[in-house]
Amino acid sequence: MKYSGTNLEKKFDLFSEHWRPRIIGELNDYQIKLAKIQGEFVWHKHDDTDELFVCVEGELQIEFRDGSVTLRTGELYVVPRGVEHKPSAREECRIMLIEPKGVVNTGDVGGELTAPGDQWI
Amino acid sequence: MKYSGTNLEKKFDLFSEHWRPRIIGELNDYQIKLAKIQGEFVWHKHDDTDELFVCVEGELQIEFRDGSVTLRTGELYVVPRGVEHKPSAREECRIMLIEPKGVVNTGDVGGELTAPGDQWI
Repeated sequence: MKYSGTNLEKKFDLFSEHWRPRIIGELNDYQIKLAKIQGEFVWHKHDDTDELFVCVEGELQIEFRDGSVTLRTGELYVVPRGVEHKPSAREECRIMLIEPKGVVNTGDVGGELTAPGDQWI
Repeated sequence: MKYSGTNLEKKFDLFSEHWRPRIIGELNDYQIKLAKIQGEFVWHKHDDTDELFVCVEGELQIEFRDGSVTLRTGELYVVPRGVEHKPSAREECRIMLIEPKGVVNTGDVGGELTAPGDQWI
């Protein structure tokens, strides 16, 4: 039998909205998500989980209350649980996120940027 | 404060052995690992966990008892728990693995390719 891998670039081509993560796989009770981002997200935190950000293409900033990190293509960062952060990107940036199932993109804050539940592509 | 992301290419430059995963980060009770692989690994399985393979650069094959999957740069695959698999690569290939802490690279099989415990870079 021929199994297929998941090609990130092909998956990114399937959607265009910003800040709307799409699920591309599951690893036990974790989900692997892709998102296109541009502009500023909201300040938020996830009290119960760390969150892995991988910059697949472009440049992403994550602000913290006491500093920031810039991620370029091929760089990753784990935002620890409970830490307030605000992702942003000047130009469109493609990111991969890994976090437990059920995590809401806007964390404790909610609001209009809150993505609907599980959107697979 | 200036935080730093983890640059995959720079991390790969820090080691050269094949089949010896290095830990570059943790996500809750999961570990993010990099490995350089070439040649054939052993048949094995992990009864308690799925395992995420990301092909960062090169070409990787994962054989199963009933087929195989080929992953090229920018492709990923989740090997489900309990499924026997044998990774291999004709040329040197750079991969990222994500799996729970404590997973042994040779799974249920052991042997000389078993990597020593936690090796951070």
